[in-house]
Amino acid sequence: MTSIAILGGTGQQGRGLAQRFAAAGIHVTVGSRDPQRARDTVASWGHHRELVEVADNIAALGQSDLTVLAIPFSSVDAILAELHDHFKNGSIVVDVTVPVTFTGGKMAMLEVAEGSATEHIRARLPGHVQLAAAFKTVPAHLLGSSGESLDCDEFLCADSDEARAQAMALVQRLPGLRPVDLGPLSRARFIEHLTALAIAINRRHKIHDARFRVVGLT
Amino acid sequence: MTSIAILGGTGQQGRGLAQRFAAAGIHVTVGSRDPQRARDTVASWGHHRELVEVADNIAALGQSDLTVLAIPFSSVDAILAELHDHFKNGSIVVDVTVPVTFTGGKMAMLEVAEGSATEHIRARLPGHVQLAAAFKTVPAHLLGSSGESLDCDEFLCADSDEARAQAMALVQRLPGLRPVDLGPLSRARFIEHLTALAIAINRRHKIHDARFRVVGLT
Repeated sequence: MTSIAILGGTGQQGRGLAQRFAAAGIHVTVGSRDPQRARDTVASWGHHRELVEVADNIAALGQSDLTVLAIPFSSVDAILAELHDHFKNGSIVVDVTVPVTFTGGKMAMLEVAEGSATEHIRARLPGHVQLAAAFKTVPAHLLGSSGESLDCDEFLCADSDEARAQAMALVQRLPGLRPVDLGPLSRARFIEHLTALAIAINRRHKIHDARFRVVGLT
Repeated sequence: MTSIAILGGTGQQGRGLAQRFAAAGIHVTVGSRDPQRARDTVASWGHHRELVEVADNIAALGQSDLTVLAIPFSSVDAILAELHDHFKNGSIVVDVTVPVTFTGGKMAMLEVAEGSATEHIRARLPGHVQLAAAFKTVPAHLLGSSGESLDCDEFLCADSDEARAQAMALVQRLPGLRPVDLGPLSRARFIEHLTALAIAINRRHKIHDARFRVVGLT
């Protein structure tokens, strides 16, 4: 894996991932609805900019075998409707979205009829696309602090062996992350609740980077 | 804290907790619907039996300022209806139940209208009882292996400062556990999803003792 696309690559989670992947030597195409604005954003990034290019979402998808979906959950329906016919045949999507809202400063998980954001996205992707969930629990704040070790486990699940293997390989490219495979896509709900738990811990304890390690797994 | 009651103290989670608390020097009254059978069970325990006594549930409750609720979630409604008028005034309950089912070998979380088992229990306790959730994520299998270090974080939440403080103190009595306070009782849903995640990891990776540590919290 030498090249990936990141849709929503200028959002907080997407930007941190783009920067970390580029630092790991992966060529990143940041997909955006507004490439000019995205180019301005990327131009302000400090390191490894030479491995990051910007394209509109459709162009980014069209040239990518592996696409990271880092758009806000509230934009998923509109963006996937627009992009539905533009995924490369048999390509892999890694979903990093989390269905969390902040209303009046209060954090809550959205009720998602499919059980998780990942399954909601599955229902809106073409059948030929393979889907994995990953990078939902690594703190955006930490991703963006390039000097800081990630030092945690990263939980993933997938609907095909190939998507699972690619998501695991992607996790392993970032120093300090250990992939923990949870199995089928229905496990995404546990990963998303873990993100909400991390946010709750951050708020309660006035920290920014709560994350998790599994004890008892070697 | 020198004495607690455990309802459901001969079930897997309750037994492990009773044995670990007794090993920590806490006097434990195991409450049971069938004290004679419970006495036979306790008689088979290896260590620290001198700190464990057995009583029927109502007697156990009546003498306890702190009661650990370790009954199966499916029995909660019936048992709390029976015990409703027997809690000591202002006493504290620590709920360790998890709304997980195993149907045909498949693990799933029960839909609980209140959002979590703990909030379901809150709705069925007298108003004067203070409630905390804790010990939901420490593996029963590990609790019962007395030589093994627990070595993990234990998540808790509560509906009063006193219940929170008492639950934290109880967690700290068991070597190897660090309490992580999540705040209000509504956070119990995250703790319960974490238990389901641990079960999923155990099954997927053919281990027994998956548990968690928070990274980034000092």
